[in-house]
Amino acid sequence: MAADKIDTIVQLSKRRGFVFPCSEIYGGQKAAWDYGPLGVELKENIKRQWWRSMVTSRDDIVGLDSSVILAREVWEASGHVEAFVDPLTECTSCHKRYRADHLEEAYEAKHGNPPANGLADLNCPNCGNKGTFTEPKLFNGLLTTYLGPVQDESGRAYLRPETAQGIFVNFKLTADAARKKPPFGIAQVGKSFRNEITPGNFIFRTREFEQMEMEFFVKPGEDEQWHEYWLQERWNWYTGLGLREENMRFFEHPKEKLSHYSKRTADIEYRFQFGGNEFGELEGVANRTDYDLSTHSKHSGNDLSWFDQETKERWMPYVIEPAAGVNRAMLAFMMDAYSEDEAPNAKGVMEKRVVMRLDPRLSPVKAAVLPLSRNADLSPKARGLAADLRQFWNVDFDDAGAIGRRYRRQDEIGTPFCITVDFDTLEDNAVTIRDRDTMGQERVGLDRVREYLAPRLIGC
Amino acid sequence: MAADKIDTIVQLSKRRGFVFPCSEIYGGQKAAWDYGPLGVELKENIKRQWWRSMVTSRDDIVGLDSSVILAREVWEASGHVEAFVDPLTECTSCHKRYRADHLEEAYEAKHGNPPANGLADLNCPNCGNKGTFTEPKLFNGLLTTYLGPVQDESGRAYLRPETAQGIFVNFKLTADAARKKPPFGIAQVGKSFRNEITPGNFIFRTREFEQMEMEFFVKPGEDEQWHEYWLQERWNWYTGLGLREENMRFFEHPKEKLSHYSKRTADIEYRFQFGGNEFGELEGVANRTDYDLSTHSKHSGNDLSWFDQETKERWMPYVIEPAAGVNRAMLAFMMDAYSEDEAPNAKGVMEKRVVMRLDPRLSPVKAAVLPLSRNADLSPKARGLAADLRQFWNVDFDDAGAIGRRYRRQDEIGTPFCITVDFDTLEDNAVTIRDRDTMGQERVGLDRVREYLAPRLIGC
Repeated sequence: MAADKIDTIVQLSKRRGFVFPCSEIYGGQKAAWDYGPLGVELKENIKRQWWRSMVTSRDDIVGLDSSVILAREVWEASGHVEAFVDPLTECTSCHKRYRADHLEEAYEAKHGNPPANGLADLNCPNCGNKGTFTEPKLFNGLLTTYLGPVQDESGRAYLRPETAQGIFVNFKLTADAARKKPPFGIAQVGKSFRNEITPGNFIFRTREFEQMEMEFFVKPGEDEQWHEYWLQERWNWYTGLGLREENMRFFEHPKEKLSHYSKRTADIEYRFQFGGNEFGELEGVANRTDYDLSTHSKHSGNDLSWFDQETKERWMPYVIEPAAGVNRAMLAFMMDAYSEDEAPNAKGVMEKRVVMRLDPRLSPVKAAVLPLSRNADLSPKARGLAADLRQFWNVDFDDAGAIGRRYRRQDEIGTPFCITVDFDTLEDNAVTIRDRDTMGQERVGLDRVREYLAPRLIGC
Repeated sequence: MAADKIDTIVQLSKRRGFVFPCSEIYGGQKAAWDYGPLGVELKENIKRQWWRSMVTSRDDIVGLDSSVILAREVWEASGHVEAFVDPLTECTSCHKRYRADHLEEAYEAKHGNPPANGLADLNCPNCGNKGTFTEPKLFNGLLTTYLGPVQDESGRAYLRPETAQGIFVNFKLTADAARKKPPFGIAQVGKSFRNEITPGNFIFRTREFEQMEMEFFVKPGEDEQWHEYWLQERWNWYTGLGLREENMRFFEHPKEKLSHYSKRTADIEYRFQFGGNEFGELEGVANRTDYDLSTHSKHSGNDLSWFDQETKERWMPYVIEPAAGVNRAMLAFMMDAYSEDEAPNAKGVMEKRVVMRLDPRLSPVKAAVLPLSRNADLSPKARGLAADLRQFWNVDFDDAGAIGRRYRRQDEIGTPFCITVDFDTLEDNAVTIRDRDTMGQERVGLDRVREYLAPRLIGC
């Protein structure tokens, strides 16, 4: 079922315009994806909901949009140039490359214990041979580019592998301009790039991806309770947008596997069911301590510590970081919303129906206007209604094919409301509005459609 | 005045959190900028208005979000690997590098005619010496990176210098998924990267920038009228959001200077007044002909031509492209909205007032709640009001300092409405709402603030 489901989502995504294989006409760019007309709307809706929840609805968090290419010194100071490395191994039999830690984790997930002899115990997932892996070599995940007229060391620069560092180096400027003091946060949405050895699983792991990161600066000693707070807040964000709790769990990172900057990290995981792993990371919530601000203070020579006016103390803020992936969130919302049930066709016979039960705030299309025919009297009324509603929401107009098939098309992409303009409309100036989930229908006056939808599309 | 004005905008931008110098604590990354709490909101508002105008309010344009790193073949086919070059010259006296075409254009703008002997007639803008420029060398503007474990030719990839090619290679997939036929368009907002020799003029020209591009596919023969249509539409978009026509003009590219793909290009220019140039490009509207789809058909082996069901003809669509820069638009809106007038201070004496007369749809903050004092009765009422309004709009709360200074702070960032909670509020349960532009004040019941603002913030 799991493998089937992800295949179903991949196919639906391409056919309906959620996600396309990148550069497909040239044979494709490995593990890269482009977002089609529906995908870009769904992705925007996710980002907008995150931004509202994290920034504009709160008094204690402000936004930022820093550059992808920061000064090289930022990545030298942060430790990324030296420590942002993964262990790369190659199967000497089929020459496929893997991350050694991923291979060992997959073994552990399957057997309940790590492999006693490390890589030597593992079969190659590609050719099946055992004991064919080379000793792992460390491989840096930063993508490099060169600025200026000559491609040499002097112009070397990096594409950011996380948006977080752009927040740390702007910490003082932002706090001053926004007149904020800890506890407060800085939030950012943007693309990051990693030279992944083993990208894959559709849009789950790609070299180019979008992050929604927030760095929350607190007084040392208050960090642990804020960590708990943000774990709960972020969990609630997903469930509040309809993700089912039975498909989610917290995962506590073991102490010995924590990143060099972290005191504690817990992930929110989703039941993606890729390969041998039941769960996969949706979002990491880390206590980064004062590592980043201390490091940048030291390397830049600018003191980033905070002077607390009330207690007359100076301290280096601790940082709690909820770091979410836009693309992973999108995949989780789609997988969770995808369902199959039955609905009557034009002859009243029950047929399979695919329906994406997305929260209306996430649905790419909020309503579809469907004139029963291309009749010269119906069309203008239907088009007029669609144009009116488009002032407020993303609204489809579809007059092609049998009405039943048009309903199915909208169900499949998660449109909450279908509005049928029929021949009675010419008499009673009303339309039928059908609810995606209940399939209940209501007759609503043409001049009342907007006010009918408004309370049902709050927050869209 | 011109140089003063841009300096004023740069300083205000840093102080209030619109735009920060990138990586400033490390001495800055040349000609790169980060967007602070207000800048990110303003930039988002510009993108949202563009998206509404181009995509969701229309029936004939759909959105897309393609990758920054496309397959290398895309850039080989498009001509960018070979032809995306600029002429680079160096002053042999001070070793500063320039784009030769920019130097000659600046000369022509100043003298009314091009330099008779080319670069030999020009003084170096840095050291003032004449006749010191080297013969120009061609320099490719693509930024290169390397994917995979080894940094060699096999992994070479490019960061896109325009979002357009991502649209062309997805043309068929998008048309099929969205069931569209020409005339129709595909719109995209996203970052592009260019290895600019001479970035500068604040956020006007940077190596990393955001584009809002739309490719409109039409039947050959209908391209010229669609070109006119889009020139006018795009002009109206800027003026509709408040840009003053007296600061704008059309600029027709001379035939001999057109890009290799273009039949005609006209720019919408704004009076940026950088250096010797009165006007600068805000947006280019190009007739790209069938160049791109033909080229990608040839190189990819996939036929991207269109079969017209009505006339039973097959043709290669022509493309009209309005290509706008988010950062330039932001700078133009800020420069145009910036103004100085006078307002009475607390003692009734007239004082200079800086006010950013942004269209409310663009303003980063829509309303500010200002309790007259931190009184224990006023504060909760004011905070409650701010929290209520934040469900709908980005709202500031400010209780620090004299009320006059707080008004000035909001005027300077373009907040359309200031809401004062005063001691009378405890009696009449009403607040004073002040209009940024007229400075008129109205007393409005606390429970009516939301409905007072709603019609005045339509489309926000």
